[in-house]
Amino acid sequence: MALVVQKYGGSSLESADRIKRVAERIVETRRAGNDVVVVCSAMGDTTDELLDMARQVNPEPPERELDMLLTAGERISNALVAMAIESLGEQARSLSGSQAGVITTSAHQNARIMDVTPDRVREALDEGQVVMVAGFQGVSQESKDITTLGRGGSDTTAVAVAAAMGADVCEIYTDVDGVYTADPRIAKDAKHLDRVTYEEMLELAATGAKVLHLRAVEYARRYAVPLHVRSSYSSKPGTIVSGSVEDLSVEQAMITGVAHDRSEAKVTVRGVPDSRGVAGRIFRAVADAEIDIDMVLQNVSGVASGRTDVTFTVAKSNGAEAVAELEKIKDEVGFQEVVYDDDVGKVSLVGAGMRSHPGVTAAFCEALSDSGVNIEIINTSEIRISVLVRESQLEDAVSTLHSAFELGGEEDAVVYAGSGR
Amino acid sequence: MALVVQKYGGSSLESADRIKRVAERIVETRRAGNDVVVVCSAMGDTTDELLDMARQVNPEPPERELDMLLTAGERISNALVAMAIESLGEQARSLSGSQAGVITTSAHQNARIMDVTPDRVREALDEGQVVMVAGFQGVSQESKDITTLGRGGSDTTAVAVAAAMGADVCEIYTDVDGVYTADPRIAKDAKHLDRVTYEEMLELAATGAKVLHLRAVEYARRYAVPLHVRSSYSSKPGTIVSGSVEDLSVEQAMITGVAHDRSEAKVTVRGVPDSRGVAGRIFRAVADAEIDIDMVLQNVSGVASGRTDVTFTVAKSNGAEAVAELEKIKDEVGFQEVVYDDDVGKVSLVGAGMRSHPGVTAAFCEALSDSGVNIEIINTSEIRISVLVRESQLEDAVSTLHSAFELGGEEDAVVYAGSGR
Repeated sequence: MALVVQKYGGSSLESADRIKRVAERIVETRRAGNDVVVVCSAMGDTTDELLDMARQVNPEPPERELDMLLTAGERISNALVAMAIESLGEQARSLSGSQAGVITTSAHQNARIMDVTPDRVREALDEGQVVMVAGFQGVSQESKDITTLGRGGSDTTAVAVAAAMGADVCEIYTDVDGVYTADPRIAKDAKHLDRVTYEEMLELAATGAKVLHLRAVEYARRYAVPLHVRSSYSSKPGTIVSGSVEDLSVEQAMITGVAHDRSEAKVTVRGVPDSRGVAGRIFRAVADAEIDIDMVLQNVSGVASGRTDVTFTVAKSNGAEAVAELEKIKDEVGFQEVVYDDDVGKVSLVGAGMRSHPGVTAAFCEALSDSGVNIEIINTSEIRISVLVRESQLEDAVSTLHSAFELGGEEDAVVYAGSGR
Repeated sequence: MALVVQKYGGSSLESADRIKRVAERIVETRRAGNDVVVVCSAMGDTTDELLDMARQVNPEPPERELDMLLTAGERISNALVAMAIESLGEQARSLSGSQAGVITTSAHQNARIMDVTPDRVREALDEGQVVMVAGFQGVSQESKDITTLGRGGSDTTAVAVAAAMGADVCEIYTDVDGVYTADPRIAKDAKHLDRVTYEEMLELAATGAKVLHLRAVEYARRYAVPLHVRSSYSSKPGTIVSGSVEDLSVEQAMITGVAHDRSEAKVTVRGVPDSRGVAGRIFRAVADAEIDIDMVLQNVSGVASGRTDVTFTVAKSNGAEAVAELEKIKDEVGFQEVVYDDDVGKVSLVGAGMRSHPGVTAAFCEALSDSGVNIEIINTSEIRISVLVRESQLEDAVSTLHSAFELGGEEDAVVYAGSGR
């Protein structure tokens, strides 16, 4: 008998009919002889609706109360799925994050899981129950207040519960049947991947692949929980995420895929005095506003002028704030101007094979150059190359790289879509 | 500094605007120098909507899961009110029933409060917070599962928290500004009551006055918590419920009011063999289906036939089931037929003054007789007389008694309406 943890996203639960379908799949897994723990997100748009109500009574709702409010969404979906399971003749019990022992930090809206003490989950499993654990939520170790885990929270709950219980697999059900070599809406011949390592999945998730959330993959890697990404709407085999690039032989280590991301904007600080510590001051001003910087480019200074440009990318949603923070230190730092440009896109090539093939970066740049795509910033890790390009050239860049590295399959792929939290 | 517990019903919270109005009143109470604990019901129709979703996924939803589902409603309203309070510049903290220490029996959907351990409530008050406690919910002492308290649950939560904390008053905010001598939609000159005893309020609540729930009044009486029934929409003084009829002088002991109830139906079992234990068999069959019997009439048997009729009332919502249960034992008991009649209404006169005025029952019957109202069943307590009449004569009966006992005021009353749970 295996222990299976399953996670279902909000769009898989958006109506009574979809809830019943999810319940059928859970019951099927149970009747195949498995112990089953299920983590559900809130139904469809529940979270957005609750947020909207909150803003109507308080334009800046306090985070502690926002957590109390939003966690109602997962309690509702969990209880409904439990009821649907019982109507199919199996026993089910829903637990809140707190009841399931999901202990977190006190950072409301963005808490981290510190520990999972799943005594009540185990007890209920021993009684033959399917156990529902409300995703996205926990209880603060310090204040005993209800917390939420931020974006991707339900994925993280599922992985954390799977890790704490030593589950055989953590199945993530979503709109798509797994991970592809590229977005099939752009690369028509994108190929389904049966298996990727944690490191490759991390790089893909970090560079725009929406199928899994970064934090959940990080958690799975740390505790070696095998993830299985599957579609809620089909019985296709999906993609297994497990193992390390370290364990791959040279033959196995390939180029995995191409990811892209339209969520970033480019900020250029022009005419920065070329003296020590000035770039640091600029990045510190942005960091102090809790804005993450992704790619960075610092031009070589013009010898004559003694001035240089500093360029970096931030999430578009933080763009206005980043510019405002920089304007505040303009006179003090003595730069000339800030230029904001959100007409950019990021394309990344990911694959364990890069480690043993030093020619990949060259081939990557040549391919883009041959098809007329201009690279504005480049940034690499051991198994990833990312470049910033014009937004209008983003799809071309994806197709070009997908072809150049021969990632396509023989058939056209099924439609691919993003997934919820 | 006083400690005030306030309870707001669902219709007072059905929109963002109403929530803001409730928040204003809470902040006003706080700024008048009081410690304030607030208990809210779920917003407007939330509970019905959640119930409807439950039935869509399972026509007979399991009660444990139903409790998990429904309690989300009060968490939502509590968090929203807390946010609205914070937007007005006061601090507020919402707690679930479990966090507030509301410990109950394990009877899902109809749990009883066993204890309230309000440590976290007190702590937050000490920090200067307005404390929101989710109404209608608690946590089972035995199973640690989330429970709900059944109808009138939020009133009961408010009273129980007030009792546990030694509050100076428990204010129940509702659609009406207190208790009246009769329903002003029927008796136009119904008079507002400034004060009633617990016993009188219990009798009124038990016989159809919807302004307070029976269990909450019972709880308030047991722990001597003064209740203050007020309107959410006005600043009128409301009605104070406190004290015992025992403590009233003869001059203070008056007739309080007339209550009426359309929710019952009459069941008559005809031709029952007049032998020992037969009536008991009939009532047992109904009780075993967990149906409460209210008024009872057993005719004197016909000497010749050796048979009699047994008549009683049950809630209309249980009528069909009661009849079905009786049909099952028809042959065994040997009665002739069951007649179901839901064209009836109950009218009750309540008042501490009855104890010292033995003529009240006679005056009551004469008044009804004079205005042509026929009494079908009569049933009394020390401070109440109730009779079952034709539904078509119910309003006549209310007006007649209201006039006969000179309960009217000089002005016409404001409109009166029922209230939520």
